[in-house]
Amino acid sequence: MNTAAARATAEFTGTALLLAVIVGSGIMGERLSAGNAAVALLANSLATGAGLYALISAFAGISGAHFNPIVTLSGAWLRRMPGKLVLPYIAAQCLGAIAGVIAAHFMFELPLYSASRHARTGVAQWFSEAAASFGLLTVIFCCSKHKPAAVPAAVGAYITAGYWFTSSTSFANPAVTIARSLTDTFTGIRPLDAPGFIIAQLAGCVLAVVFLRKITGDYSVS
Amino acid sequence: MNTAAARATAEFTGTALLLAVIVGSGIMGERLSAGNAAVALLANSLATGAGLYALISAFAGISGAHFNPIVTLSGAWLRRMPGKLVLPYIAAQCLGAIAGVIAAHFMFELPLYSASRHARTGVAQWFSEAAASFGLLTVIFCCSKHKPAAVPAAVGAYITAGYWFTSSTSFANPAVTIARSLTDTFTGIRPLDAPGFIIAQLAGCVLAVVFLRKITGDYSVS
Amino acid sequence: MNTAAARATAEFTGTALLLAVIVGSGIMGERLSAGNAAVALLANSLATGAGLYALISAFAGISGAHFNPIVTLSGAWLRRMPGKLVLPYIAAQCLGAIAGVIAAHFMFELPLYSASRHARTGVAQWFSEAAASFGLLTVIFCCSKHKPAAVPAAVGAYITAGYWFTSSTSFANPAVTIARSLTDTFTGIRPLDAPGFIIAQLAGCVLAVVFLRKITGDYSVS
Amino acid sequence: MNTAAARATAEFTGTALLLAVIVGSGIMGERLSAGNAAVALLANSLATGAGLYALISAFAGISGAHFNPIVTLSGAWLRRMPGKLVLPYIAAQCLGAIAGVIAAHFMFELPLYSASRHARTGVAQWFSEAAASFGLLTVIFCCSKHKPAAVPAAVGAYITAGYWFTSSTSFANPAVTIARSLTDTFTGIRPLDAPGFIIAQLAGCVLAVVFLRKITGDYSVS
Repeated sequence: MNTAAARATAEFTGTALLLAVIVGSGIMGERLSAGNAAVALLANSLATGAGLYALISAFAGISGAHFNPIVTLSGAWLRRMPGKLVLPYIAAQCLGAIAGVIAAHFMFELPLYSASRHARTGVAQWFSEAAASFGLLTVIFCCSKHKPAAVPAAVGAYITAGYWFTSSTSFANPAVTIARSLTDTFTGIRPLDAPGFIIAQLAGCVLAVVFLRKITGDYSVS
Repeated sequence: MNTAAARATAEFTGTALLLAVIVGSGIMGERLSAGNAAVALLANSLATGAGLYALISAFAGISGAHFNPIVTLSGAWLRRMPGKLVLPYIAAQCLGAIAGVIAAHFMFELPLYSASRHARTGVAQWFSEAAASFGLLTVIFCCSKHKPAAVPAAVGAYITAGYWFTSSTSFANPAVTIARSLTDTFTGIRPLDAPGFIIAQLAGCVLAVVFLRKITGDYSVS
Repeated sequence: MNTAAARATAEFTGTALLLAVIVGSGIMGERLSAGNAAVALLANSLATGAGLYALISAFAGISGAHFNPIVTLSGAWLRRMPGKLVLPYIAAQCLGAIAGVIAAHFMFELPLYSASRHARTGVAQWFSEAAASFGLLTVIFCCSKHKPAAVPAAVGAYITAGYWFTSSTSFANPAVTIARSLTDTFTGIRPLDAPGFIIAQLAGCVLAVVFLRKITGDYSVS
Repeated sequence: MNTAAARATAEFTGTALLLAVIVGSGIMGERLSAGNAAVALLANSLATGAGLYALISAFAGISGAHFNPIVTLSGAWLRRMPGKLVLPYIAAQCLGAIAGVIAAHFMFELPLYSASRHARTGVAQWFSEAAASFGLLTVIFCCSKHKPAAVPAAVGAYITAGYWFTSSTSFANPAVTIARSLTDTFTGIRPLDAPGFIIAQLAGCVLAVVFLRKITGDYSVS
């Protein structure tokens, strides 16, 4: 396999496993917790953080383990990766994310996909998504520069916290948002609410790139 | 002690302690949680992940800390270990796993072994086991190549997530499956359901080896 | 951006994100747990520890990631940082902390700030704050000297434990104390109780500096 | 301060903070969880594991961060430390442990000490303590030899698991056992049950030293 194909395959597989973790652990948490939403979110947030750590550690050496279009866009903007890989990466992430949701549904004997009816909208949640995305990219690119070995654990820990500290539970990822619109379970989002989340995530991405260029010499325009 | 005997002893002891952790924490979780299955699984999954991290860190320097026949089989197939150690490793893992279940029962004043009555079967759970095994081996061998120091934490984190994101709770280990058929507690599996799980795990193992050879140059057949 | 401005910006941004995590996860934990305070504190303490780990990893390379006036004061006292940065650091931490509380309130559709009515006072809680602050600074400066790469995880883990082992839930940070007096939610503290906490934290700081000078040669007065 | 005094002070302070974490988080967990023992033990086990990680990371560079007489005894037996430090270490650990219990009681407005009425006895619990101690020392000395940087996290993770997988909740430490006989709270043990636990811990210690000498060349008698 040539490098570009291996990288796209890594992004597809990693994002698929990530969505299986997010959606699957949400289903299991909801089923077992008998209506106790705090315990369900505890399981969901710990499983997602732990899964992210494992998957980023595994795939970082092949593709960088983005699993997230705003990570790929920022990386290209900050000249950390070749621009011609942006579209293949984003395509692989979106397709992988959808495949992961289908796999999770199959594991729990649900219809392979179904539109979510979980409303997630409004200024407070959009602000949450922008803030969560800004924080995620700041954590990733500051660690990448000063302490690259810490990236997998820092991202996993940040997202575990993010499930709790934002009213939107920190999707912070357009591919994840699209895929979660296809599951009518604990972690779903109504398809009509997805664009608002994605726009907010992109706004957080712009803010983060501007901030990173200001605060770290390395990312300034040369 | 010569090296081969030390390695087999490490596999036996590590797998025994691992099963004591899995089965023992399941018993304690079930007893204390008074029927709240989500809290019991939270305790069980966190204890298992933490125990795995500690035990792999301890024994990695002696035997590689496989504790799992599909890890040993993949390792030999990918030419990461001598083929003549495969049988002693798998024997040590299976015997150690059974010893660990007996130890856990003794600690909690239960009969030393008893056939489980916990039904775990069906296509959804078999698919879960294949996917969980594929993911586990992908995490192990991708980390081993690119970031070997992360293997113990990545495996512990992956399995903590696995307890939640699959409908089978991610056994992903034939020795664990055999041993857990001998406990009629929270973590048990009916003996007649064990072969289905093991076949699914072996299928996931084949898939992972094919995938790893494709995606990483190092594991391609020379 | 020159270095001093970049450092102050890092302290402002990091402390703002930290307070968003502390206050936001407290609100979410309280809302979802339906009155089960142990589950709410579990979420709050795990989110705070995970967030601290991610944020310290991110900003350590720029400003040292203090996010805490007693860390800055001890650092200057132990001659680990230039004294002229003390005031800008503390100003940035306090402003950032307040900005983080406002952001958390906006995310959860609450008034942007409101005086807390949560009483936290008395000798037992003051002793808790002094002990928590002593322990925090001891962990930071002993790790800094002998094992600097462990600081982010050690601080996150220590604070997760601190939420549980002290009757005050270990604020251990004057900027955090001031900011939390402005939120009438799970993590608040009455404004009139804040000075007692801050004095106790400063006492713990003095104790820690004396202890660190005694126990480690490096920190002795030259 | 000369080296021996600094080491003993580190053992005293670290063990005191450790007991404050164990006993304090037990009190807080029991108070907040309203009789839900699984949630209380979840808080207690996570706080203890996190605290151990932070405290071992902090004090490892000064005294080795034993905080535990069986670690000190094994270390001397395996010739990892000078024999003349054994008595000062054990004295510092026992006094520190008692000081930590008193501090925890003061933080929660309880009498400074009181004999526990929590019965912990019988063959199953003694076997648990022997097994837990064997596992703890095996993890510590195997990691020390092959992967020393992993010791703090491995010990913290092992003890978090230990609270769940043994019927005795893995004291695995004679100084901790003595000190916990002085608290009539969640983590206490009746004074008359302490000797049985300590004898079992010493038996696990002997077993571990014999095992470690067999399995690793380095620890064999020269």
